[in-house]
Amino acid sequence: MVSAVEQSVLFQYWQIFLPLFLLFAAFLYLKDKKEIEAFTNASKKVREHNKLDGADLVAVTEEDIDQEDEFSPSLETKDHVPFSGASVTLPGGAKEFYKMANDRRSVRKYSTKPVPIEVIEDCVRSAGTGPSGAHTEPWTFCVISSAEIKQEIRDIIEQEELLNYTQRMHKQWTTDLSPLKTNHVKEYLTDAPYLILIFKQTYGLREDRKRKQHYYNEISTSIATGILLSAIQSAGLSSLITTPLNCGPALRSLLNRPANEKLLVLLPVGYPSDDCKVPDLSRKDLSEIMVKY
Amino acid sequence: MVSAVEQSVLFQYWQIFLPLFLLFAAFLYLKDKKEIEAFTNASKKVREHNKLDGADLVAVTEEDIDQEDEFSPSLETKDHVPFSGASVTLPGGAKEFYKMANDRRSVRKYSTKPVPIEVIEDCVRSAGTGPSGAHTEPWTFCVISSAEIKQEIRDIIEQEELLNYTQRMHKQWTTDLSPLKTNHVKEYLTDAPYLILIFKQTYGLREDRKRKQHYYNEISTSIATGILLSAIQSAGLSSLITTPLNCGPALRSLLNRPANEKLLVLLPVGYPSDDCKVPDLSRKDLSEIMVKY
Repeated sequence: MVSAVEQSVLFQYWQIFLPLFLLFAAFLYLKDKKEIEAFTNASKKVREHNKLDGADLVAVTEEDIDQEDEFSPSLETKDHVPFSGASVTLPGGAKEFYKMANDRRSVRKYSTKPVPIEVIEDCVRSAGTGPSGAHTEPWTFCVISSAEIKQEIRDIIEQEELLNYTQRMHKQWTTDLSPLKTNHVKEYLTDAPYLILIFKQTYGLREDRKRKQHYYNEISTSIATGILLSAIQSAGLSSLITTPLNCGPALRSLLNRPANEKLLVLLPVGYPSDDCKVPDLSRKDLSEIMVKY
Repeated sequence: MVSAVEQSVLFQYWQIFLPLFLLFAAFLYLKDKKEIEAFTNASKKVREHNKLDGADLVAVTEEDIDQEDEFSPSLETKDHVPFSGASVTLPGGAKEFYKMANDRRSVRKYSTKPVPIEVIEDCVRSAGTGPSGAHTEPWTFCVISSAEIKQEIRDIIEQEELLNYTQRMHKQWTTDLSPLKTNHVKEYLTDAPYLILIFKQTYGLREDRKRKQHYYNEISTSIATGILLSAIQSAGLSSLITTPLNCGPALRSLLNRPANEKLLVLLPVGYPSDDCKVPDLSRKDLSEIMVKY
């Protein structure tokens, strides 16, 4: 057996084969090490993404929840003062408020009739009173009155809608979607005296420039948006909540917003046009949305 | 040199060393393959998770966005009627609304003073007027006045908070979190005359029992929550937005809510207790939250 081995090529030239084999083994080993690093970075990125991009609910940990509920630096450092409850209320209370809220309709056709900026400012101030996780106030309200910028915003959004439209055709939704053919045109983006673009701040910066996580920034900013809608209604103005999410990055860079801000919603604000029409919708009855225990 | 090699131990016992080396190389190779698989599965799971848990924004596709903006079955089938704008507004307009909104404080200590259910009903009705993706109205408001159920809810939440607390201790946050030691006790859950648990409906059911996707159900329900807060304020009542997320499933089954409903927020509603105190917070100035273009 040994003699057979002694005659084998491997044996005669082992000084060549052994180093070659070592080299090959080393290559395999290092190659896989690279792949491992690639995968680690990949899953790291996915986790990062969760933390930063609005998916608060997904990313939330029990520590986050506790910080949200209890561990609020801003609260910690403040004195506590007596509070005896609401001092400013609405004559007629909730019943009167409901009449006002129920009078709101989403409007898609606007008059160019001007609106004083002070009214919009009071509406945004009202939105800014909303509650937020650990009082982070993670919102930015961009108010656009410049005709040029409104046109640029309209261009970005209509271009995107047109893109959506052609993509849908590929999906053979032709029949369902044919009524939309012309709907990618959105006059309201240039007709309305104001556009409000609401950005959620996914994180903030501490004095030491370290990132400060903004818990529930999406829920908080959406709640503030609900207060904004109520303020807009109280002023007798109309609006339309839209979510041009696929335009978010383009609109963000158009307005030079920082990396921690992500577009949540865009709403035109103004008066309806004289020929404005709204779908003859009804809302769910109280019994369909409320359950008593 | 060769003779030196010939006398070397490696040469004399190469039949032993070579197989041993091969075995070692193979071991390294397979070991890393395993690690690679581990990493792949890990990042897969993270992605899955995003898809599943109500992360509407993350999951949203351009088709969704288009359906949200334009393709709304409910709108399609309805006639369009003229709309001349808001008819019910607030005397004093947005300025007056801001005074009311700015008067709101999050209250953690409640009086047991009763509140008529009709007031709560008008607040929930108001919330139900909020806009929603394709008019899906994807919300359910559970109003709890039963002392027994309030106690059960308090038990679930306090138990969870205690759990959080002990887990945090493991994390050596002792110093930071020591002030929280007693804070897992939440009297407001049983003192307040009402608890409102707001559920987002992640999907609905068509007549043909097929699932009907609820676009942006989280944003829509959060906006409705903001309108609810405004209504509560208009009635002179106080509340506290909390997000007991880690309790969601337990609370959902306690209230027998269907699988398509996920808890978004829980708020006690009532009057502050006589000894109620709130942190002496200030809100961001308008210049910090609003940018004009």
